[in-house]
Amino acid sequence: MSEALAGGAVKEIPPKSADLSAWYTAVCLRAQLVSYSPVRGCVVLRPHGFGMWENLQRELDARFKATGHENAYFPLLIPESLLIREAEHVEGFAPEVAWVTQGGNEILTERLAIRPTSEAIIGTMYAQWIESYRDLPILINQWANVLRWEKATRPFLRTMEFLWQEGHTAHATAQEAREETLSILGLYRDFAENVAALPVYSGAKSASERFPGAVETFSIEALMPDGKALQSGTSHDLGQNFAKAYDIKFTDADQTIKYVYTTSWGISWRMLGAIIMAHGDDRGLRIPPKLAPTQAVFVPIVRSGDDRAIEVCRELARKLTAAGFRVRVDDRDEQPGWKYSEWDLRGVPVRIEIGPRDVEAGTAVLARRDRSKGEEGQRQSVALTEVEPTLRRLLEEIQASLYEQAREFLLEHTIATTDRSEFLELCSTRAGMIDIPWCERAECEAEVKRATTATTRVVRELQEGDVLCVACGEPAKARAYFAQSY
Amino acid sequence: MSEALAGGAVKEIPPKSADLSAWYTAVCLRAQLVSYSPVRGCVVLRPHGFGMWENLQRELDARFKATGHENAYFPLLIPESLLIREAEHVEGFAPEVAWVTQGGNEILTERLAIRPTSEAIIGTMYAQWIESYRDLPILINQWANVLRWEKATRPFLRTMEFLWQEGHTAHATAQEAREETLSILGLYRDFAENVAALPVYSGAKSASERFPGAVETFSIEALMPDGKALQSGTSHDLGQNFAKAYDIKFTDADQTIKYVYTTSWGISWRMLGAIIMAHGDDRGLRIPPKLAPTQAVFVPIVRSGDDRAIEVCRELARKLTAAGFRVRVDDRDEQPGWKYSEWDLRGVPVRIEIGPRDVEAGTAVLARRDRSKGEEGQRQSVALTEVEPTLRRLLEEIQASLYEQAREFLLEHTIATTDRSEFLELCSTRAGMIDIPWCERAECEAEVKRATTATTRVVRELQEGDVLCVACGEPAKARAYFAQSY
Repeated sequence: MSEALAGGAVKEIPPKSADLSAWYTAVCLRAQLVSYSPVRGCVVLRPHGFGMWENLQRELDARFKATGHENAYFPLLIPESLLIREAEHVEGFAPEVAWVTQGGNEILTERLAIRPTSEAIIGTMYAQWIESYRDLPILINQWANVLRWEKATRPFLRTMEFLWQEGHTAHATAQEAREETLSILGLYRDFAENVAALPVYSGAKSASERFPGAVETFSIEALMPDGKALQSGTSHDLGQNFAKAYDIKFTDADQTIKYVYTTSWGISWRMLGAIIMAHGDDRGLRIPPKLAPTQAVFVPIVRSGDDRAIEVCRELARKLTAAGFRVRVDDRDEQPGWKYSEWDLRGVPVRIEIGPRDVEAGTAVLARRDRSKGEEGQRQSVALTEVEPTLRRLLEEIQASLYEQAREFLLEHTIATTDRSEFLELCSTRAGMIDIPWCERAECEAEVKRATTATTRVVRELQEGDVLCVACGEPAKARAYFAQSY
Repeated sequence: MSEALAGGAVKEIPPKSADLSAWYTAVCLRAQLVSYSPVRGCVVLRPHGFGMWENLQRELDARFKATGHENAYFPLLIPESLLIREAEHVEGFAPEVAWVTQGGNEILTERLAIRPTSEAIIGTMYAQWIESYRDLPILINQWANVLRWEKATRPFLRTMEFLWQEGHTAHATAQEAREETLSILGLYRDFAENVAALPVYSGAKSASERFPGAVETFSIEALMPDGKALQSGTSHDLGQNFAKAYDIKFTDADQTIKYVYTTSWGISWRMLGAIIMAHGDDRGLRIPPKLAPTQAVFVPIVRSGDDRAIEVCRELARKLTAAGFRVRVDDRDEQPGWKYSEWDLRGVPVRIEIGPRDVEAGTAVLARRDRSKGEEGQRQSVALTEVEPTLRRLLEEIQASLYEQAREFLLEHTIATTDRSEFLELCSTRAGMIDIPWCERAECEAEVKRATTATTRVVRELQEGDVLCVACGEPAKARAYFAQSY
């Protein structure tokens, strides 16, 4: 354990309700998810934070593989001449690129970009690999670090270097590419809801919010406690834009030569930011059990030199580990109350307390992190033989309960309106996801953004009765959620 | 499947025995482990190669975690002022560094190195995290990409960017740091022998082969078929060198302030190069079953439109997958013989053939990749109900057999001598690991290197009867294996 948690540190977190931003930064640091580094814009992902990332990786990776995707690894550095081939793409990313200009003692004749994303290098390789329709589809994912030049630093939400996965697929037809894009959108939504316990709205982005070079971008959007939306995953239908820029062609079954259709899609460690903010409370993190690096922490209570509880905890921890749970024993020489606060702060879903009297009685106390102190069902004493089934049930209940609380919040803060001034007021005051019939015009979206800083989050089909855009009065063409966003 | 395997590609691999280097490059490309990229010195790790890397990761990671290590992630970019703090370290790495000098449109006031290794940034963070002896030990590992400026490209063995894991630990005492260094050396040896099926010699490196900044470097060394050694993993005792350079101090239980002792250790994708070279044969790869992305491939045989075999294969594949095997069904519209050659090339340990007659009889033919065609036990027909236990047994036998063959090779090519001219001759002709009593003098090693290009691989204790250094005639202080090396 490090110094950050020593002494009265736990108390130094401001209440979440009072100042979300201050709470967020404090909890990320105090719970030892991240540290700031001496490198501008870059954070260190510490073991507790990396443990969440590993669980996210394992869950997403299993879903990718179950749907036929394979992992690969492409170079970090991209020659400038490759990066600039797709016009919109380079325009979107050039201002954010870090450039390598020297190698060893050599000054390079061509600058090398550190990948801000890998369409350019992967497209170049696909052009080499693909010859015939028999080579399609190509379904590849990469887990990687990427870098986008950035001055501000906000753990997980805004960093220069970040970790992500980027899928890149190539298909014979436009329809297959679109199906892949939507299938991944569904996979992301499933992950968000069933693993991250985050209810999301999913759908298409407006033209102005599209990925540079995409034909259509889809995303999942979660709502944070301050009423701002957080885009947590995107899936892009790239049409033939990148195929034409990188010359990715194939001979079809009819012997004609065609460009492929490509997609790309990604989830980054930003998702961890959404999870921290959505589920945390005044005491710190509340990590969904499926992502928790430690699902249950044992706190043995030693009184008057009676340390039998430590061995009971260790023995039970061994059994639970063998049964597939992620548990640890906190046998440090500190007061139990201090440990309780620390593991509350760090968001461990269940705490298991065993003291001398429990040892005598063959019992343990299980405390749920998701409920408040003194709340009904927050603590329960069970026989040692019942710890495993009880823990299993509690973890499921906590996972479901965190989702349910977040869903209630989203539904309560999803507000449909047909009144223009109410719409603008709701957008300005961060009331949540503001649901209106919309004209789909970029000018209208820009005007709303200027007036309120809100933009469309996702767009979906018109509903019966939608006639005019609530924002501008032009004919409505879609329904959209507007919100301020991270 | 890609173009690289179409048509007669399989036949294009030169025999391994005739030209190891040409065979190696051809098999890496043709088996689709890697592709060359348009970025100098960088290769793409394709799904088949990445699948090997994923299995290596899983096996090593489980061993790290079982010994109390946790994963974390540190920044890719290291400010020049941090990198240069440890004098030997910077001298060793400066000529190999790629420098970022521009970010977005900004010219940086300080160059940022792309990490060639992470002692500098991790040491800086440890100095912030560690205050008291209670914070020790810190046992952290990182899976990361690193970059060392490099003009030549040889898949896995010599690339500018490569994937690796780097462990970095901090301890209160010199003894604990040394124990950690040796414990990891043992872990690496266990992995090499029991997962990679590579027998290795492990021990200390000579002073001239030490990691820049280390007090002592240990390594595991495998022997390749051309008689050259390949260093496959290193573990460094860094003493207090980095602690002093990065000011990593702690308050000990006695209230005095001390520098910590650190270690670092790594295995890179170079290990895959060793595996490919050691186990492959004229037909291509032979991947040890524990690392094989595909452990068994089904080849259904369709005759005269009778495609019942495909469904039988799929059904059996589902069962084997559920039982934890990594299998796939090759149902492409190609000739079985062509598929056999391809999967031989790609090193899949077991092929399962099912044709119309097998469907009638309820049988399958299992063919072992590690034996030659026509060799006793290479093919066997079993009842469908016996496929699972037979496959389990075959994978174990193949794993053991690959190890045994490599071990015989190592033992046959480990040659002790007490004759100076024989010693130099054996070194010059790449006869293998040449085992001599040695004086431990850098001048002696440099002289042997000049004369033969061989260097010490690992050094161990003197044996009874060792008196004089075979290379130079000075008093012997250790025994050493000399060999040319990759």
